Amino acid sequence: MPFLLPFLFLLPGGGPTRPAGTADSPPPVDQALASLRSNGLSDLGAFGFLSRILECGPRLAGSPNAACAVERTRNLMVDMGLQDVHLEEVTVTLWERGKTDARVVGLPGGDLPLSAAALGGSIGTPADGVTAEVIQVQTLDEARALGDRGRGRIVFFNRPMPTDVLDTFDAYGKAADQRAHGASAAAASGAVAVLVRSMTLRVSDLPHTGIMHHDEGVPAIPAAAVSTAAADRLASLLAEHGTVRVHLELGCRTVGPVKTHNVVGDLKGRELHDEIVVLGGHLDSWDLDPGAHDDGAGCAQALEALRLLKELPTRPRRTVRAVMFMDEESGGTGGKAYVADPRRARERHVAAIESDRGGFLPLGFTILAEEPVLTAFNRWLAPLSNLGVTFLRKGYGGVDIHPLAATGCVTIGLYPDSQRYFDVHHCAADTLETVNERELELGAIQMAGLAYLLAEDGVPK
Amino acid sequence: MPFLLPFLFLLPGGGPTRPAGTADSPPPVDQALASLRSNGLSDLGAFGFLSRILECGPRLAGSPNAACAVERTRNLMVDMGLQDVHLEEVTVTLWERGKTDARVVGLPGGDLPLSAAALGGSIGTPADGVTAEVIQVQTLDEARALGDRGRGRIVFFNRPMPTDVLDTFDAYGKAADQRAHGASAAAASGAVAVLVRSMTLRVSDLPHTGIMHHDEGVPAIPAAAVSTAAADRLASLLAEHGTVRVHLELGCRTVGPVKTHNVVGDLKGRELHDEIVVLGGHLDSWDLDPGAHDDGAGCAQALEALRLLKELPTRPRRTVRAVMFMDEESGGTGGKAYVADPRRARERHVAAIESDRGGFLPLGFTILAEEPVLTAFNRWLAPLSNLGVTFLRKGYGGVDIHPLAATGCVTIGLYPDSQRYFDVHHCAADTLETVNERELELGAIQMAGLAYLLAEDGVPK
Repeated sequence: MPFLLPFLFLLPGGGPTRPAGTADSPPPVDQALASLRSNGLSDLGAFGFLSRILECGPRLAGSPNAACAVERTRNLMVDMGLQDVHLEEVTVTLWERGKTDARVVGLPGGDLPLSAAALGGSIGTPADGVTAEVIQVQTLDEARALGDRGRGRIVFFNRPMPTDVLDTFDAYGKAADQRAHGASAAAASGAVAVLVRSMTLRVSDLPHTGIMHHDEGVPAIPAAAVSTAAADRLASLLAEHGTVRVHLELGCRTVGPVKTHNVVGDLKGRELHDEIVVLGGHLDSWDLDPGAHDDGAGCAQALEALRLLKELPTRPRRTVRAVMFMDEESGGTGGKAYVADPRRARERHVAAIESDRGGFLPLGFTILAEEPVLTAFNRWLAPLSNLGVTFLRKGYGGVDIHPLAATGCVTIGLYPDSQRYFDVHHCAADTLETVNERELELGAIQMAGLAYLLAEDGVPK
Repeated sequence: MPFLLPFLFLLPGGGPTRPAGTADSPPPVDQALASLRSNGLSDLGAFGFLSRILECGPRLAGSPNAACAVERTRNLMVDMGLQDVHLEEVTVTLWERGKTDARVVGLPGGDLPLSAAALGGSIGTPADGVTAEVIQVQTLDEARALGDRGRGRIVFFNRPMPTDVLDTFDAYGKAADQRAHGASAAAASGAVAVLVRSMTLRVSDLPHTGIMHHDEGVPAIPAAAVSTAAADRLASLLAEHGTVRVHLELGCRTVGPVKTHNVVGDLKGRELHDEIVVLGGHLDSWDLDPGAHDDGAGCAQALEALRLLKELPTRPRRTVRAVMFMDEESGGTGGKAYVADPRRARERHVAAIESDRGGFLPLGFTILAEEPVLTAFNRWLAPLSNLGVTFLRKGYGGVDIHPLAATGCVTIGLYPDSQRYFDVHHCAADTLETVNERELELGAIQMAGLAYLLAEDGVPK
């Protein structure tokens, strides 16, 4: 593309617009939102916050790296002048990965290593591993129906995320049951371990981990993700040879309860101190990856949104709060602890916005509410469209803020472009280099814009 | 993000949906569009087409590489079974870059090289270059007003693209006049050469080239882009030393007229053979870069859209045509030649859709039309939203298809996420690796969807 003719005669842009409000009276809505947009895109502060968080490394809940991120984000909040910055205790169950070795054995040409990673929460294998024939299935029901054919086997769940759906979160929802419940379904048929195809739309050599559950009433058996490339190779070998044996060693184990923290900081409301609008993401990540999109991005956006709101000449009417939640990945204990904390007794949470779907181009928000609230929210679509918001529709808010929904708080999730998310999700590719500074910033700006409206006017009716 | 609770109980997705129409009666619209989406996302054919085009290398109009791309895309059209595949002659003015050397001279520590690239169409310097004091300006008017202060100088245009606007095409439109007309504005004050800050929002060491014009009535002087990092260094040196001298050698020159081609292939209409819906992009790129987003992407999407439409059980009512235009970058001669070709005499062009804003997440279409046509188009927003289209709004169609507008053809541009475009535009970073397969494919699917509606129903009224 050369330069665009229709824009040729526009004047050069001026500097950032600062709104004209005073300490007592807020600026007009359009002016306030324009200021958030202009200051955000000029400064690109979210990327700086993200870089600082990622310096701690992968942040498995309960790990020293996660503690680093707690300290780091507390300091960032203090440095930017948030009020009542403090930590709130969360008790998480620390899990550690240990050694991983997965290989096809008994092949004429020698063993074939499989790119694999234990699933979060899995028990380990005995120290010398398990070696067994592999049986391939596509669904939990198929695994449960194996009966004696599953006994002593390694069950291999190989149903891909469907590629032909528009929204990759839908595709994930149609395949992730294998990862979460595959081990227990296979254990019901007497299996000794499971391998699960990684949850990604790409054929890649990176294994994608994620939480799994040992359901009650069936034996716990070890579970590992294999990369999609390894899954395809394993399926080919099964098709070729009929019988394939795999050796699996997982050194993973549950260590036990560990104390860690949510990090909380406020921009106190101009009038209604104890009415709260929460902006949040989760500080923890998996241990395999820097957690740039999942969910360093959400934490950085929440911090940046507070910074942008704080730059307005008038504080919003209600308190806007940043919460860095701990331990979303293995059960959302931080979100539950936040609601249970005694400090909540004197507060009323009006709304909470979480960003936990990646730092990609933000497209809109999903709102966990019914009519007529949804229609009322859509009166804000026009002003928010100037920040790039294209929809405000019914949907899930977020794992960390979901416990707030039971308190009458409206929970809302930022919804970005999903096309690239599962290229990086829960694998070593979730790095800072895959984050575009402006796309990340737009998410912060949209969160700040919606938070501004909620903090000024409350939930629309 | 772990797995999303609301999706947990959805059933696994089925295979791609093939619509139920016959050779004579088209399938219902929603079914046809669902088929385009499902087949496209399953096959991701656009990325394959793009890879094949990029194998030719950078494709400056008139160069052997561009001729390779002409032959390559003709073969791709033949292989996929398009009809009347043929070349249409275009005469372009070949320009070549030759040597580039730009450096700050006379510094105590020795010369400081500046990352630079001649602007397309620029004359070269004398063989031994020009060496002159640099004077910095922000606007064309400022350059024209230099008068004697510009005489014998190298004028340095250093007005950045404004960062604080949402749409980066707007930001580009507010800065690109320096690149296009900076040389002539400076020549009016007697300057001997110009350096222009690269058109990107990033601080980077890559120079971004692009077309410039030697306006009539003023002397032609050499013009080069400098990287944004080099521009910042040069500005710092000027601030520090007051006087800074630069040596510039550009070996670029206009070679002369060369014959090359547009590439055309049809999916003939079921009923109205001579009523045409064009889908296009441009085959040429700059010589510095592989032209993945600009505009290999648009060509690949047009080819893929035809492939998807051809897979429908019923051909659309009107002819849908893929056109790979030549020479968008230095003046749109291919687009003009297409309209002027005698073959057009027996055809009526209903609509033309161009993709030339990058292969990023597609968000909607800009339509060069007035009311009530725009409102009529928006009746299609609901079915097209199932392909991810978020708007159908008034706007420019595209450089290559713009000459068709004068024939009564409605011209339409695919509009993707603009946030990442100027990171890669006209520089060496515009590579295949920066293209996401699914985002690229969605653009092809959206083009196919809108083309299907236009080919079945004509321009809505």
